[in-house]
Amino acid sequence: MIRVALDAMGGDSAPRTEIAGVVEALAELPEGFLIQLVGRCGAIEAELARHPGVDRGRLELHEAADVIGMSEKPLQAVRRKPDSSLVVGLALQRDGRSDATISAGNTGAMLAGSTMLLGLHDGVERATVATLFPTGTEPVLVLDGGANLDCTPRELLGFAYLGTVYMRDLMGRPNPVVGLLNVGEEEEKGTAIVREAHQLLKRAPRLNYAGNIEGRDILPGPQQRVPVDVVVCDGFVGNVVLKFYESSARVFVGLLEERIPDAFDRPEMADLNRILDYSTYGGAPLLGVKGVSIVCHGASTPTAIRNAIRVAVQAARAGLSQHIGAEFAQRQTATSA
Amino acid sequence: MIRVALDAMGGDSAPRTEIAGVVEALAELPEGFLIQLVGRCGAIEAELARHPGVDRGRLELHEAADVIGMSEKPLQAVRRKPDSSLVVGLALQRDGRSDATISAGNTGAMLAGSTMLLGLHDGVERATVATLFPTGTEPVLVLDGGANLDCTPRELLGFAYLGTVYMRDLMGRPNPVVGLLNVGEEEEKGTAIVREAHQLLKRAPRLNYAGNIEGRDILPGPQQRVPVDVVVCDGFVGNVVLKFYESSARVFVGLLEERIPDAFDRPEMADLNRILDYSTYGGAPLLGVKGVSIVCHGASTPTAIRNAIRVAVQAARAGLSQHIGAEFAQRQTATSA
Repeated sequence: MIRVALDAMGGDSAPRTEIAGVVEALAELPEGFLIQLVGRCGAIEAELARHPGVDRGRLELHEAADVIGMSEKPLQAVRRKPDSSLVVGLALQRDGRSDATISAGNTGAMLAGSTMLLGLHDGVERATVATLFPTGTEPVLVLDGGANLDCTPRELLGFAYLGTVYMRDLMGRPNPVVGLLNVGEEEEKGTAIVREAHQLLKRAPRLNYAGNIEGRDILPGPQQRVPVDVVVCDGFVGNVVLKFYESSARVFVGLLEERIPDAFDRPEMADLNRILDYSTYGGAPLLGVKGVSIVCHGASTPTAIRNAIRVAVQAARAGLSQHIGAEFAQRQTATSA
Repeated sequence: MIRVALDAMGGDSAPRTEIAGVVEALAELPEGFLIQLVGRCGAIEAELARHPGVDRGRLELHEAADVIGMSEKPLQAVRRKPDSSLVVGLALQRDGRSDATISAGNTGAMLAGSTMLLGLHDGVERATVATLFPTGTEPVLVLDGGANLDCTPRELLGFAYLGTVYMRDLMGRPNPVVGLLNVGEEEEKGTAIVREAHQLLKRAPRLNYAGNIEGRDILPGPQQRVPVDVVVCDGFVGNVVLKFYESSARVFVGLLEERIPDAFDRPEMADLNRILDYSTYGGAPLLGVKGVSIVCHGASTPTAIRNAIRVAVQAARAGLSQHIGAEFAQRQTATSA
């Protein structure tokens, strides 16, 4: 039985959205997991009362009196608020009483908290937020998605390994292709950091590195030069592209609806809405920590929460964290040999 | 009469596409300009023979025996190839024999050549490639679009002024709103360089600065927090987002056509194709140089070349370069006072 701790107080409309997402998850996902709701039990119970049919046998409640706000400084907040729902949720996992932690709260605090409480695998320099981009076919993993704005070449190399293990374990791709996001495919293109990262990636063992890619190569389509599963970039670029993509999909949908008002009512269009909808993929895992830690957008829908729960269960079941640990242990051994 | 020098040998299918674009421009754009075709006159004449109806009275031919290749190192190429079509085209403008220069060739060489031959306005630290993003409504200017990968805070500030004058002169927006591309709206967000640029922009006179914006704020739409006319960023991010946008538009069109095969045959959809098509806007101006210098994509269509000619004529007629000079002179005076 996989135990998933959910910060019930994290998101913009907590705990309502969180509880609705849990209800969806319990009803719709395959069994074999239980949810640990962490937060103010009174508020959680009040929300649960709206869902009388929920299976209480698969729910635990864990009291956490405090909440970390969206604009609080991450490290300070984690240190000063040991009784916050986010920290209590991570502590359950640290203490072996939970297998995964999810929060739609302060992303920085979740990153800092996960790093402090769960720790990083040996050889991992920084944990990274890995975000799946929906596409017309299979999703593409972009990392870092905004946690690490300035990255060293070695950190970018680390992201390539983290993304590779993730895509293998969770998306079933046996040999994921990695691309380094750059402004051109040639070796001499890019900033000094990206150029050096390219050299490290070229020589890296056990990576299926396709070389430099451009913005047009992220999504599969007519413009893509080489298909990729994993896109490595610093968190500044990753965050900008992620948010831009989300908004451009909505702009496209709006332009279309202006012209064909019933476009999305047609049955053949139903899946397009899903493809363009981020909530399909739900949370973004923090890769590199010892354990399973998932961040969700503050404005997550219940479906996004449900899908984050799905990802958490899959990651715990697949042994993602253990595989990441083994991969980096192998790198450490190779380096010191 | 505005004289526009066009590097006839620049693009991937030169001189065919260039000549076809010129023919389109002469037929479709308002009169008051002539085209100076620069390149191998034999090859140009051979192409012109395919368009017997063209008005030769509005065409000049200027021989240039050499061509700068797409993969040549910009500065070296400009220095070593004074007889290249790109350099000869710029030299015409430097010598007062032309009012604007366009090339679909090596962008770096066009930037280096424009900076060397035309010079920068006093106070401009680096010229920038300004790219218009098509939207459902008015286009948005993003700069830098890929010429300057690493930028100082002062350079980013300079881009804000360059973009402001451009949008005022060429897009008729009296008081363009400037946003600084970042990973969040709060002051403390971003890299050290972006944070300092934000402080400079906040205090800058004669700028309509809206503050930090995110990837989702670039395009007008439901997700945009603040409408912007000018987006300031370094050339790495700008280039990635530009190319990503172009490809995502095509992915979206493809997804739509898979589901509604005749979608784009419908009359109400004709303009959507246009909106999503970069060639509508044609060339990207290099702002900050003394004169008018326009770069086009190597894979430009004839329509893109035609539109680059339109932009060149507009820029020359509006006195864009003079206005940029005056703006930076005012900044210099204010700084030294």
